[in-house]
Amino acid sequence: MVKIAVLGYGTVGSGVVRVLNTNHDNINTRAGQQIDIKYILDLRDFEGDPVQEKIVHDYDIILKDEEIKIVVEVMGGVEPAYTYVKSALEHGKSVCTSNKELVARHGAELLELAKKKQLNFLFEASVGGGIPIIRPLNNSLTADEITDIKGILNGTTNYILSKMSREGLDFDTALKDAQDRGYAERNPEADVEGFDACRKIAILSSLAYGMQVDFEDIQTEGITKITKEDIAYAKKLDAGIKLIGSSKKVDGDIYAFVAPMLLSNSHPLMGVNDVFNAIFVKGNVLGDVMFYGQGAGSLPTASAVVSDVVDAVKHMGTNIMSIWCTEKLELADIKQSENRYFVRVKGAGKEDSVKSAFGEVTFVVLDDKKDETAFLTDSIKECDFDSKIAAVGEVINCIRADF
Amino acid sequence: MVKIAVLGYGTVGSGVVRVLNTNHDNINTRAGQQIDIKYILDLRDFEGDPVQEKIVHDYDIILKDEEIKIVVEVMGGVEPAYTYVKSALEHGKSVCTSNKELVARHGAELLELAKKKQLNFLFEASVGGGIPIIRPLNNSLTADEITDIKGILNGTTNYILSKMSREGLDFDTALKDAQDRGYAERNPEADVEGFDACRKIAILSSLAYGMQVDFEDIQTEGITKITKEDIAYAKKLDAGIKLIGSSKKVDGDIYAFVAPMLLSNSHPLMGVNDVFNAIFVKGNVLGDVMFYGQGAGSLPTASAVVSDVVDAVKHMGTNIMSIWCTEKLELADIKQSENRYFVRVKGAGKEDSVKSAFGEVTFVVLDDKKDETAFLTDSIKECDFDSKIAAVGEVINCIRADF
Repeated sequence: MVKIAVLGYGTVGSGVVRVLNTNHDNINTRAGQQIDIKYILDLRDFEGDPVQEKIVHDYDIILKDEEIKIVVEVMGGVEPAYTYVKSALEHGKSVCTSNKELVARHGAELLELAKKKQLNFLFEASVGGGIPIIRPLNNSLTADEITDIKGILNGTTNYILSKMSREGLDFDTALKDAQDRGYAERNPEADVEGFDACRKIAILSSLAYGMQVDFEDIQTEGITKITKEDIAYAKKLDAGIKLIGSSKKVDGDIYAFVAPMLLSNSHPLMGVNDVFNAIFVKGNVLGDVMFYGQGAGSLPTASAVVSDVVDAVKHMGTNIMSIWCTEKLELADIKQSENRYFVRVKGAGKEDSVKSAFGEVTFVVLDDKKDETAFLTDSIKECDFDSKIAAVGEVINCIRADF
Repeated sequence: MVKIAVLGYGTVGSGVVRVLNTNHDNINTRAGQQIDIKYILDLRDFEGDPVQEKIVHDYDIILKDEEIKIVVEVMGGVEPAYTYVKSALEHGKSVCTSNKELVARHGAELLELAKKKQLNFLFEASVGGGIPIIRPLNNSLTADEITDIKGILNGTTNYILSKMSREGLDFDTALKDAQDRGYAERNPEADVEGFDACRKIAILSSLAYGMQVDFEDIQTEGITKITKEDIAYAKKLDAGIKLIGSSKKVDGDIYAFVAPMLLSNSHPLMGVNDVFNAIFVKGNVLGDVMFYGQGAGSLPTASAVVSDVVDAVKHMGTNIMSIWCTEKLELADIKQSENRYFVRVKGAGKEDSVKSAFGEVTFVVLDDKKDETAFLTDSIKECDFDSKIAAVGEVINCIRADF
């Protein structure tokens, strides 16, 4: 029997308890032995809840109990999670976490510490909720050089964009609907400004390229400026708009960003709607693969956490190798990256100046937008785009495109 | 350094050599040590090919060389692959294979042998080519009870159906196009009759449910009876037709089949076109996940084989656990399973007899098919469907539907 402790009895923590209760036979078979929750750390008491007798308020009880071999950290936030996780590893306990802030900021260091102690630091649930993506990146796509990762990494924004697209709504109305359904927080900034996706693409990039990608280095743009007109234009181009966390390797340089992108309707990511997430990965020999599923929610996220617990049990005493090291990866200047751009500039009849700046482009016309000129460029360096667009006119909106 | 031998220098075998040559630095980093091909077993000599010096014709050389720790079997077919693989394991060598016939027939036994010898028998490439699906099923979806697997498991048939749907072609024309492009064999039976998909869903089911699912027990129907009219009807229902390998668990019973199915256009599998494959899996706590990618091809398949080699190197001396045991899983009688059915019967104006047999159904009309009655039933047991349809009339075609 393996005794574990769960830190935090919130959405994910209660999900972990429920998953272990619901599927205990299956899980114990998979793990090769019985997994038993001995403690749950929370500030609250949960009187009357069946877990009440396992609740402790003092982390030291867990830390000092040598019976506890695995600590499940599902509190979220960098502190006190970091202090707790680090001391768990120092005390010879493996850690499974769903905490993307913690993993993005301290992943490399905690992996190194786990390796040193022949323990494991696992974080399948930190990206894509229930979608298996961390383990496949770490253990399956090992024959490839990863050249491109594009992820719909945030369910809230994907719901909002799906709703805007399906019903022709503006951003504020779709956001309100998402809040009413509990998909978006009252303060939706972390989601709609792309901060959540930014941490996730930082984690995926670090795992894919084997070095520490600092999320602060990733240019991040949310979806608050996306209008229903932008989406209507996209439809005219047989495309749609998704918030994409992207990192790609070009001639040895790695470029990363989070931004709304126009994707062709034939792109596999365009079939990913509402709160679903998906991660599209290109390998130099494998070609394209995509992982799709529920990116959030108590049970899907808990399923991923528990799969980590099973892995930690199976690998007791041996460290599961990861190539993510503490050395910092210097991202290339995003201004040097090439993209196509969908652009709307003020004023009708700008076709000639657009062509003289960008050569052949695809113009798009919306019937009720006669006072502007909209077009899709060919692939162009971002810095060249910046210098050329000034000559054309005042930009209403500009969105990267992947066609 | 780890020395390996490759059995078979055909499409996949040459891919394995190419992947190891192309990505050796990455692969060696991932494996933690250098991987070196010492022998390639083939009947041919490959004079002038850089691999010529590694070619051997006698398997005993490989078997008796204690330096060889891993044997890569990419010959295909049950024999002599089975004899070779079994003796490799008996001689203390782990095996990585892409051979679905071998794995479907002897997987459980070979896994057991590998476990006994503290070796590994790995077969990521046997289903879905480059798509990571075996390892995720085995190591990631471990917190769940798998309740449903639906896979587009054969690229040839998916190409043919995609082509028929996009261009309104009949089966024979689309098959010819697939043959001309090298996507279908001159004798296309294994693909178009569903035999290939049958072996793959047998493997996935065995892994998901932990017992031996014999592929001979799986009712298998190909796509040769699908007409362009069927596809036109499907479109009227905002749906499409895919060849699906399916297994699902209902009240403890497991039903499995391979058959064409009508899927709603909103189903994630409907975005999977041409030679791409995808496997859709439902877990009781995870919800829906899908794995998408190239289901065949030299390099994608070789990428999966090499990822197994990396895993075998990382797990030298320890067996990677699998729940697939030799005990036979008795599939439930497919006649007791419930499905919706899309049905075409001869003769116009059969609406009343359809309604009296099936209650409320959805009728569909094609303008150029006035002499028949077509409809979509609600969910009904297959045996009940069989007994009721006789009263309605002569069936032109009948396709399961998942809406």
